[in-house]
Amino acid sequence: MTSDDDRSKVLHARDFRWEAVPVREYKSEGTTTFRDITRQTLIGEGEDERAPGFVTRYFEIQPGGYSTLEYHAHPHSVVVLRGGGQVILGDRVEPVHPHDVVYIAPHTVHQFHATGDGPLGFLCIVDRERDRPTLPDDDEVERLSRYPDIATRLRR
Amino acid sequence: MTSDDDRSKVLHARDFRWEAVPVREYKSEGTTTFRDITRQTLIGEGEDERAPGFVTRYFEIQPGGYSTLEYHAHPHSVVVLRGGGQVILGDRVEPVHPHDVVYIAPHTVHQFHATGDGPLGFLCIVDRERDRPTLPDDDEVERLSRYPDIATRLRR
Repeated sequence: MTSDDDRSKVLHARDFRWEAVPVREYKSEGTTTFRDITRQTLIGEGEDERAPGFVTRYFEIQPGGYSTLEYHAHPHSVVVLRGGGQVILGDRVEPVHPHDVVYIAPHTVHQFHATGDGPLGFLCIVDRERDRPTLPDDDEVERLSRYPDIATRLRR
Repeated sequence: MTSDDDRSKVLHARDFRWEAVPVREYKSEGTTTFRDITRQTLIGEGEDERAPGFVTRYFEIQPGGYSTLEYHAHPHSVVVLRGGGQVILGDRVEPVHPHDVVYIAPHTVHQFHATGDGPLGFLCIVDRERDRPTLPDDDEVERLSRYPDIATRLRR
């Protein structure tokens, strides 16, 4: 009941690595807006995975590392799989632990930080068709930095 | 940077239950094609979660339970979170363990079974707009049952 060009499969996991899934740079272009973070695209970008309208990715941040402070029109559905961290989510900072779900609504500024002793790993699902991220400008960062807990945590 | 009708949020998890997320029946209509399975919709069905084109759900099957043997045109992206199980996936049976990823391509007959001592829990992400499942007919079940490992496992 499967076609040759879109086949069902199981990607077995071991220590947060998956069969046949390369560990890639977080972003293809070199920037200084993030630190110690990798990306594994689990389902949705392969030639044989054209059917879903979404992409299932896994990101991992080493202790002390963080993702880019950014926002965009497309939402994120995040499920934490390992480790502890904090997420800047609009005007607040929230702790996250395994299996916590983070919904990042359109245009919410966000940044993930690995604040525990081990890596922070999380699934992040996005629509296949989506806009590029935007970095908040100086005025927005200044506004956010009036919140003491954000000022302490924010990196750019 | 968020609007009132589509807000970012964290749903904290505890023992595979999430804040403000009800544990529901697997399917709304009563059928005898499944056993001991519940559904929690994490992100994508709320009035305040209209932006994503996909829905992030969590299913949990108690030991000995199983999902409906079915197929449909929309694909599934599955990530196992807890327990051990087996999945009928087209013409084969595959074991699954935590963090294994299952891609169920369009029209692949599939059925999840909790075969361990504890619950089998997994995320299952689907497109928001999708077709209804179809049950395989007697001829297809007869064909599948020629595979001994499927014959042993299959329930309908």
